[in-house]
Amino acid sequence: MATERKTVEEMLKLSAPKWRTAITKIEPNKIITRGYSQEDLIGNISFPEMVYLLLKGDIPSENESKMLESVLVSFCDHGITPPSTQVARLMASTGSPMNSCVSGGILSFGKYHAGALESSMRVLQEVVQKGVGGHTGPLKSHHDINAVTEILVEEFLENGEKVPGFGHRYHTEDPRARKLIKLAKKYGCSGIHTEFARAIEDRLYEMKGIRMNVDGANSGILSDMGFDWKLGTGIFMIGRLPAIVSHVYEEKTSESPFRKLFEVDEIHYNGVEEGKIDILKKLANKE
Amino acid sequence: MATERKTVEEMLKLSAPKWRTAITKIEPNKIITRGYSQEDLIGNISFPEMVYLLLKGDIPSENESKMLESVLVSFCDHGITPPSTQVARLMASTGSPMNSCVSGGILSFGKYHAGALESSMRVLQEVVQKGVGGHTGPLKSHHDINAVTEILVEEFLENGEKVPGFGHRYHTEDPRARKLIKLAKKYGCSGIHTEFARAIEDRLYEMKGIRMNVDGANSGILSDMGFDWKLGTGIFMIGRLPAIVSHVYEEKTSESPFRKLFEVDEIHYNGVEEGKIDILKKLANKE
Amino acid sequence: MATERKTVEEMLKLSAPKWRTAITKIEPNKIITRGYSQEDLIGNISFPEMVYLLLKGDIPSENESKMLESVLVSFCDHGITPPSTQVARLMASTGSPMNSCVSGGILSFGKYHAGALESSMRVLQEVVQKGVGGHTGPLKSHHDINAVTEILVEEFLENGEKVPGFGHRYHTEDPRARKLIKLAKKYGCSGIHTEFARAIEDRLYEMKGIRMNVDGANSGILSDMGFDWKLGTGIFMIGRLPAIVSHVYEEKTSESPFRKLFEVDEIHYNGVEEGKIDILKKLANKE
Amino acid sequence: MATERKTVEEMLKLSAPKWRTAITKIEPNKIITRGYSQEDLIGNISFPEMVYLLLKGDIPSENESKMLESVLVSFCDHGITPPSTQVARLMASTGSPMNSCVSGGILSFGKYHAGALESSMRVLQEVVQKGVGGHTGPLKSHHDINAVTEILVEEFLENGEKVPGFGHRYHTEDPRARKLIKLAKKYGCSGIHTEFARAIEDRLYEMKGIRMNVDGANSGILSDMGFDWKLGTGIFMIGRLPAIVSHVYEEKTSESPFRKLFEVDEIHYNGVEEGKIDILKKLANKE
Repeated sequence: MATERKTVEEMLKLSAPKWRTAITKIEPNKIITRGYSQEDLIGNISFPEMVYLLLKGDIPSENESKMLESVLVSFCDHGITPPSTQVARLMASTGSPMNSCVSGGILSFGKYHAGALESSMRVLQEVVQKGVGGHTGPLKSHHDINAVTEILVEEFLENGEKVPGFGHRYHTEDPRARKLIKLAKKYGCSGIHTEFARAIEDRLYEMKGIRMNVDGANSGILSDMGFDWKLGTGIFMIGRLPAIVSHVYEEKTSESPFRKLFEVDEIHYNGVEEGKIDILKKLANKE
Repeated sequence: MATERKTVEEMLKLSAPKWRTAITKIEPNKIITRGYSQEDLIGNISFPEMVYLLLKGDIPSENESKMLESVLVSFCDHGITPPSTQVARLMASTGSPMNSCVSGGILSFGKYHAGALESSMRVLQEVVQKGVGGHTGPLKSHHDINAVTEILVEEFLENGEKVPGFGHRYHTEDPRARKLIKLAKKYGCSGIHTEFARAIEDRLYEMKGIRMNVDGANSGILSDMGFDWKLGTGIFMIGRLPAIVSHVYEEKTSESPFRKLFEVDEIHYNGVEEGKIDILKKLANKE
Repeated sequence: MATERKTVEEMLKLSAPKWRTAITKIEPNKIITRGYSQEDLIGNISFPEMVYLLLKGDIPSENESKMLESVLVSFCDHGITPPSTQVARLMASTGSPMNSCVSGGILSFGKYHAGALESSMRVLQEVVQKGVGGHTGPLKSHHDINAVTEILVEEFLENGEKVPGFGHRYHTEDPRARKLIKLAKKYGCSGIHTEFARAIEDRLYEMKGIRMNVDGANSGILSDMGFDWKLGTGIFMIGRLPAIVSHVYEEKTSESPFRKLFEVDEIHYNGVEEGKIDILKKLANKE
Repeated sequence: MATERKTVEEMLKLSAPKWRTAITKIEPNKIITRGYSQEDLIGNISFPEMVYLLLKGDIPSENESKMLESVLVSFCDHGITPPSTQVARLMASTGSPMNSCVSGGILSFGKYHAGALESSMRVLQEVVQKGVGGHTGPLKSHHDINAVTEILVEEFLENGEKVPGFGHRYHTEDPRARKLIKLAKKYGCSGIHTEFARAIEDRLYEMKGIRMNVDGANSGILSDMGFDWKLGTGIFMIGRLPAIVSHVYEEKTSESPFRKLFEVDEIHYNGVEEGKIDILKKLANKE
């Protein structure tokens, strides 16, 4: 009997838990997120507080909550200029459902578009922690920051690469960046990463006339608030989603379906037009 | 000259505006959303107010803002039980990037999952506006509501269909629904659609012991706040996105990559196993 | 002991197979698809034969194989005119990876684009099986076909809807349709569904000058080959995928990244531009 | 007049062609792909020939056509074991449409899953062209191959990384790889890249008992056929798509919708369960 019971246990081990989570526990009539009953959270915490609770495990302080709110609002919309918004609207024009269009928008966040927040957070966090070039070890002083800033900016410029978080193809001075930096000071969310971002801006402005953009400002602030850079694109998506939904809805309700966003005369052909006669004949003979 | 100028204008008409929007205008160093400069919005409006502004064109009243905040918080997470969350985590285990995993989650909102909010809003809005069955015309009184409720519930049950927004596969009584209804009263966001949803609950509870779920409650409330049912899934996505991001991040940082979520012995084969010898020979001869 | 053993079995039932499949069985060093070892299939069956084997469970006859090959080739590409191709290329320009761009293309198959094959197959199969309007029961004769054709076309026209599979926004006479119908006769793959599709074309041409397109031809042929209409979009995707891959590759290798597909002056603003001063002040005071 | 005309031209330059393509030209009633009318291609070329034409611009030789056919067939299916197939079926169970489920499958091709073909092609092509480690310059002889093989394998093993294209979590000897290598010889499609891949296998088998898998074999063959490694995942998708469609269809037609693929007791909670009482009270007081 005893051995048989053991076998049972062993056999059941085969169906060990597949999922492990510290986020939310579900029981009949009970939903507990990070230790709180959801019915207690609803009506008592703000949406950014819920975002913070989900991503970092705790409810933020009042100042952190206001800062995260500002960050999310700042990502909200950039009109129809971003390719992600164009993709979402183009898909909406084909009659694709809301969630397909939104996915199309989200999937358009490629290497050259919307990745700057995460890349910038990564650079700031890695350099603050480990230094760069000949300057190794964690950054500790203004002097350290100035030293690595010089090395870092030079490295990017030498490789002909843009420093992520700086410069904007529509704005010489991104109005969101200034406001965010101001708020970060007000809410005490400005630390070494933000300082570092501002040092990069000073250097880039001096050398190339380039200023910090919304991603550069937020990457400093979110890093100082303790967000892992791997959450960068995730946080950007949370902020940007309402606009994508809004643009898809506007396209679906205001425009005629399956409209031609591009006309035939906007397509140029590179040598595709001549009939390949000889092979056509060969094909015909094979027939 | 005059005719030539006309020709110019006609030629330029060919490149008429492709996009029209009332959401956000972009100018150098200026981003204007629904008439407001974004630098004025950042730090001055809450994220739910920004959602409302984007989707409906205006900043909401303080009570509406609090109500929408509660609605978004209530959608935040249901742990690992929803297939959308399982899909997002399964994709995360393959090393897919954050935006691909999030898209996988969003694309899992199918007919049987996560569509209830929009379906429920549609039913409530269409019936309130046009009646149902023999009871035509807009609903005006408690008497009207009671009459259509009876017709509607009977119709669904006769077709063997679930009324969207009622019943839950994990909860006999969804704790989020009660709290939301209570808040809707507090914030003055409870009107004829919410009343109608509650009448449906009373009828379903009486007949089948089924109660309102989070979607049923929010569909009444959002309809009373004037949101078009076509925005239902969009609003749900805005609320749920932080959790999907959080689950993808947890999977990526806490679990080993490419782990086997399903073992081979969890796959059952239906007659696929026998070798089809004769045709194999025929194939070999063709060779 | 006996009862205990039973309990064990019952407990193990809890971990019953999650997946059941008749498609492919995996064993160490063995991959068996629909009863065939894959190493026997590779080099011995054509790709369209593999498609047929996967979707219908058997290897097709030689004629069916040639017909399916022609159908897949006919779906291959329509240049840059389809919104799905535009979406895939627009996404490629942002630096999104190949699989994201391809997904964007596939997700653009909406109600108004690329759904015609499946819709058309559904109409043909349902009407052939059950009739339409006053003409119930399965179609049996030329007379039946003529009768339902008249009813069906009238129904669509009265509702102001297009009959799926007929008419094309670039071609008055789709060159692919004629060729496919010719091949269907040659390969003996033309039956009652194709005859029905051609009767619809005759009627539509007579009334409106509209001809069958590639989807209309293939919907008749695939239905006569026994493909369930629910596979329509799936088969279309198999045929179209190589072109999407090719367009994404061309965009990535021939064009500059993050190029502007739309210029700012192609965006028109609807009343978004005026500053909402009063509320701005109110907001400022709140601050 | 002259200056005005110039201005016209300049203004029109603004609406220069947005798209350039060498793939397919569309004219009324004419579809020309890589110089061939599609109605001539349909019925005259095989599907793999169309794939080759789209991706490489020409119709392949008969042997190349047979080789590509075998490559595509070899990718067709690996049952329910790949996470991409599990994702597609899980999504199908929610009632998501075919194209969403297929996208979910395709988006699951992450760093650890289904990327091996492209990574392996990249390694082979870059090393054949430029050498590796101390051995620079293009590979020219058996001697060169042996030298770089040793360097390359050691490099991967030292970094604790798998050589892409070798080893399989279900097969110690992938039956598809052997067959493909045999066919590559038969069809004259085996050159320096395939030889290199086989040298890597010999070395890995000697050192670790690891053999070439389907991706390793195909990466050698496709590279010898002149396919750019950037097309690796694209070609894999073309081969795998029919299986994903087939699995989604099987799930939708054979299983009950919204079934629970995971039970609640398969979820393990990490400390999420305790009620955080104190903060709840604080929240209540704020209310």
